[in-house]
Amino acid sequence: MTTDVSTDHRGMRVLDLDECLEKLGSAVFGRLAFSHDGGLDVLPVTFGMDGTAVVFRTSWGSKLQAAGDRRLVALEVDDIDPALGIGWSVVVKGTATIEYDNAVTGPWTRLGVPYWLADGAETFWVRIVSEEISGRELVAR
Amino acid sequence: MTTDVSTDHRGMRVLDLDECLEKLGSAVFGRLAFSHDGGLDVLPVTFGMDGTAVVFRTSWGSKLQAAGDRRLVALEVDDIDPALGIGWSVVVKGTATIEYDNAVTGPWTRLGVPYWLADGAETFWVRIVSEEISGRELVAR
Repeated sequence: MTTDVSTDHRGMRVLDLDECLEKLGSAVFGRLAFSHDGGLDVLPVTFGMDGTAVVFRTSWGSKLQAAGDRRLVALEVDDIDPALGIGWSVVVKGTATIEYDNAVTGPWTRLGVPYWLADGAETFWVRIVSEEISGRELVAR
Repeated sequence: MTTDVSTDHRGMRVLDLDECLEKLGSAVFGRLAFSHDGGLDVLPVTFGMDGTAVVFRTSWGSKLQAAGDRRLVALEVDDIDPALGIGWSVVVKGTATIEYDNAVTGPWTRLGVPYWLADGAETFWVRIVSEEISGRELVAR
């Protein structure tokens, strides 16, 4: 772990990659942003990490469609106290793809990723190969 | 307020517009998704509501750039208990624009929107004119 204390142009502390991965590893859910119908959509998603890749289960719908089209997506995770204005936010940007190979997805089922949706629905695993991981810490003024 | 109990294809309850606006009105911050550098970015933002429009302050940076270009953006707000898998999520989709007119932004300064960033930075008001507001409630299985 480095002791990088750099700040961005807004005075927020820039998290290094180890810190970002630690936050991602401890998080249970985030928000997935993806292009959809000519605009953008953002939906909550539970996920796990396989190294620096984000993996999650989804059923038929717009998230699966985005992965089927190998679209660029962004997953945001945060923990912010709005009253105090302190906390952090991490964003993973990358390309979403559907993974059909059970030999690959088998270990993912043991990551303990909670699945909130209705039982019985057919689900697919999606992998986001990280192309950029960045994070900021909001420090009280 | 209607008593719409429709559910989507995942079994989540669809929130009606009044419910969505109520959630948005009670929220302090959300996550803004916007296209950036050929991909997508998602950043936390504190905001207020002016009717069905989302308004927020920002300084020089990628969010301001998105508004300067009148890009389509999406703001997501949620309150989810990850352990129980219950909560809600609301998304506002629309076009972001910078509002320079003090006669318009004056009332916005009195909405009590917290501003987390460094003092002294020049800030601008951005308005997202809502083109679509939708919400889902996650009900324990």
